[in-house]
Parts: sequence; C-alpha cells; structure tokens
Amino acid sequence: MTILIIFNQADAEEFRNHLIALSGCPDVRIWPNVGDPSDIECVILWKQDEGLLGQFPNLKLIASYGAGVENILYDTSIPDGVPVTRFVDDTLSDQMAEFVLAAILNHRLHITHYRELQAASHWRPGYFLKGKKVTILGMGELGNCTATLLTTNGYKVSGWSRTEKNIVNVKSYFGDDQLNISLKDADYVICLLPLTPATTHILNSDLFKTMKTGAYLINVGRGDHLNEDDLLDALYKEQISGALLDVFSTEPLPDDHPFWRHPKIHITPHISSPTDKVQVAIQILENYKRMKAGQSLINQVDPKRSY
Amino acid sequence: MTILIIFNQADAEEFRNHLIALSGCPDVRIWPNVGDPSDIECVILWKQDEGLLGQFPNLKLIASYGAGVENILYDTSIPDGVPVTRFVDDTLSDQMAEFVLAAILNHRLHITHYRELQAASHWRPGYFLKGKKVTILGMGELGNCTATLLTTNGYKVSGWSRTEKNIVNVKSYFGDDQLNISLKDADYVICLLPLTPATTHILNSDLFKTMKTGAYLINVGRGDHLNEDDLLDALYKEQISGALLDVFSTEPLPDDHPFWRHPKIHITPHISSPTDKVQVAIQILENYKRMKAGQSLINQVDPKRSY
Repeated sequence: MTILIIFNQADAEEFRNHLIALSGCPDVRIWPNVGDPSDIECVILWKQDEGLLGQFPNLKLIASYGAGVENILYDTSIPDGVPVTRFVDDTLSDQMAEFVLAAILNHRLHITHYRELQAASHWRPGYFLKGKKVTILGMGELGNCTATLLTTNGYKVSGWSRTEKNIVNVKSYFGDDQLNISLKDADYVICLLPLTPATTHILNSDLFKTMKTGAYLINVGRGDHLNEDDLLDALYKEQISGALLDVFSTEPLPDDHPFWRHPKIHITPHISSPTDKVQVAIQILENYKRMKAGQSLINQVDPKRSY
Repeated sequence: MTILIIFNQADAEEFRNHLIALSGCPDVRIWPNVGDPSDIECVILWKQDEGLLGQFPNLKLIASYGAGVENILYDTSIPDGVPVTRFVDDTLSDQMAEFVLAAILNHRLHITHYRELQAASHWRPGYFLKGKKVTILGMGELGNCTATLLTTNGYKVSGWSRTEKNIVNVKSYFGDDQLNISLKDADYVICLLPLTPATTHILNSDLFKTMKTGAYLINVGRGDHLNEDDLLDALYKEQISGALLDVFSTEPLPDDHPFWRHPKIHITPHISSPTDKVQVAIQILENYKRMKAGQSLINQVDPKRSY
C-alpha cells in the first residue's frame, strides 16, 4: 500500500505521521517526492495542478482532505472509474453550526462592536437586534446541522437547496426559481453551498438586491461563492448592513485586500470548520481497506453533482 | 393616584409617558418636582439618596425599576410595612441567557480576537477552545434560564447558590462551604448573584486563585461583586485568562479607568439585560392595582434576603 499526500509541506508531515501511526504502513509519500508513480494507489489532496492525477497508472482512490472537492474534480486527467471521496464528520458539522450561531449572536448583540468602542473609551449601550430570521443556502450535512442548532436557539430558519429537504421546523425552498423568495425576509443569509459552476459567484449584486435592506451576510462556504466587488458595492449602497467572511478566493487573504480595513466586514481566517487530521486519516484508511476488499466506499462523490 | 419617578431625567420622561398611556392617570411626577409629598402613594426608582423615602407619609408601594433592589434597601428611612417590589420578566432572563452564550462563544471561537487581528491584516487561524464547563454563581431566574440555555447548547453547567436547587442537567452547589469546589473545574465562571453584603466583592483574589488557571470570568451581576484591583492582579499573574465585564461599580465607566485599555478585559456597557420600559410599567401598575385592592403583590422583595 502506497499513499501520496499532495498539500503544503508543514501540514503534510503532521498528517503523514497520523497515517503511519494509524495504519502501521510506512509507505506514505509527500508530493513532490513521488518515487515511482506506478506505486501510488491512493492520493490524499486538497487541490492539485491540472493533469497531475493522470500520472499514476495504478491509482485506485482519490481522497479529499476536506468536505469540498471543487479543487479536485475540475482536473480532466482524473482516470475514469477512480472513485473520489470527501471527508464528512459530525464534529465538523457541530463546529460549523456553533460558528454560525456565534457569528449571528456577535452581530445581534454587538459584542465585537463594543470591543471596538472600548478602544476609544466609548460607553454607548444599545439594544440587541430583534431579527432572528435566517436563510441558509446549502442544506447538506453542514447546513442541516446549522439549521437544527439555530432552531433550538429560537431562530426561524429557512433553507435553500437544489432539491427539497424535510427538516423539522425548517422551511425548505429549492431550485433556481425559489432562490429569491427564500431570501427576502431573512435577517441573516448564511452560505453553506458546495462550490460548483452553478454556485460560483452566487453571492452577487442580484442576490444582495433581493435580500432585505439591512440584512447581514455570513459566508462560510467557499471564497468563490462571493463576487467581492459586488459585496463592496452593496455595502457602500447600504443594501446590506455587513458581512462576516470566513473564506476567500485567495487564502490567506492578501495584505492589500480592501476587505481587511472595511468597517462593515468582519474577517475570520477560515476557522469555521477546522479539520481534525486524525479523523480524516481514520476515514481515508477505512475507505482504502474497503477499496481493497471491493466494498462500497463511504462519502464517495458523485462527479456529476460535484458533491 | 400619584406616582413619583426617581431616576435620571432623560429616561424618566420616556417612562412617564408609558405610565400615563397605560394607566390613563396623568399624575406622574418626576423627582425633584415632588409637589406635596403627602400626595405620593407609589415611588418607582433605581437608586435614591439615603433618607429620601422617609419623606412621603402616604407611601404605599416602592417599586424597583429593575431586577435588583440593592440600591434601595440600604435606605434606613424606608417606612416599616411598605412593600418593595422588583421587576422580573422572562424576556429579561432570555436576553441574559443569550448574552452569556454569546460571550462564551465569542471567547471560545475567538470571534472578536480575529477582528482585532484584522486591523493589522493578520491571518492567524486558531482552533476553537474545547473547554465547555461553566459555573454560574447565582441561580435565581436569570441564572436558571442561563443554565438551561447553556446545557441545551452542550455545555456542562454547575450552579452555586445560597440554597440547593434542582435543575435538570445542572449540578447544584450551595452555601459558603461549597463555593470553592463549585469553581475549580470551570472553564467559565459567570456571576449572576444578587448584590448583598455577603456577595459584595465576592469576585476577589481568593476566588481567582480557586478558579482553574486560564479560566474566563463573565460578570453580568453587579459592578460591586468585583474587586477591581484583584482582577487586574489575577490577569497580570495569568491566574485567569481574561474577563468580559458588563457591569461596573461606577457606570458609565470613567474615561480614565484602567479597564478600558486592558487587552484581556472585554467591556460591554451594561447591555446584558436591557429593561423593557413598557413591561416595567405594566408590572408596576398591576401591583399598584393589587395594593389598592388589598391583594398580594407580584415580585415582592423579602428585605431580610435582599432579593
């Protein structure tokens, strides 16, 4: 068994140690030290250069290190019939749900705002914002778990997704036709969509115009869901009141990016669902074993839907 | 029926309008324009000068504008037998619970911290803090409601109070003997005690030394629960990691107070349980009616316990 890890060096070394400790198999290589390409049966990756995956004639499993696979599937060199899997775990969903609740509470109760006033010794009490209507775009595992936590905390939640969902106390909107209506009453719009050609730049001027004036955007999906210029424009025109962004088209966000100093944009450095490396390793090794035994895999991706 | 309102002028005018609108009775006076002191049957107040309450020979009801009565009961001129009531409502409890959850999430997920890093374009992702053990000092309406919300959100909650409490999933500690043991495992210590001679400066060096190293303090009780110098000392010695303070001995917090610029102290301007003026007016007018009819009052204070 030979595994190739393709991602940045510091993370890769730590992850390799977990894989070796859990599997007892020492042959875990780190890109670009591939050795003989025909040894490689499994690659674990987050994103790769176009054409790379076509170089391994004995490849049997392509495992994403994260929940998303948009950085992988675009590669036309992926050999036909090689399964692609992604990482799904409840911890990730729980953390995401908690992050979204924290972001909403922080905005409604002005917690960070008071810390900013504090720097100038300003004592300016205000009331909690009353608006508790939330629309979640994307109702997969993360969206579902987030919706459930928010309803438990007294929020009125709607979800929008490709197909209809049936979740207790969550109004389901689905399909392109219902996107606008799902948004129009929301005080908070949360993006938890998978990134696909259809959802790239879905957070754009049209969407901001549809949102309720003064609503707040939280993007915890992917950076490319957002049209950055359109957000700046919508904030300038006060169509929406602000945004918390955890994901960006380029990460880390470049030093000279206008988002850094924007008073209405709260930046968090992609921390909404930190990956538990041990859990990733366990799940990938389980799939490797299943693949060897000819069994069906867990969390296999349908390339047609991109998730 | 003549009511006297004793508090700062701006608030008093607005509150008087609510009282007149709800009662249909126009004779609501605002201190210091008392007129004939023998007219006054009901005073509504937050705090008053010593001796003031003895000036009204026909006083029949003393109503606190808030949940606390510590600013009222110290007055030795309160005529014997005149009932003192306080304001209690579920909205207040819900808001307090929400505020405490927001404060904990903000600390565990570093939401405000990232906003501070943002000012310097710093991208420094970190993990959520795992510690979810909370001890609430004071298990009255507010403590009870807060404990329930936190347990719903997956926190392990203990409560400390004068007498034993029986709340689902909340470990009850009680009496002076059990204060220390209630604190020692907590990642978060929340003060929601009533202010009495026994609880004044209860948040002091002894308590900070008992807390787990690195624990976080949230004071949403009263400013005088906290010994301010002891907090600065405990933060300097890194016995505790930080504090969110919503209440202060002097409010607004004076401009030159060292808390304003302290990196480990997060100040909010007494917003954890904003009073709904209309609800206060409704509750006080109900008690006024009951008093006139010789019925028992709602939320009457036992002066011996001070709450």
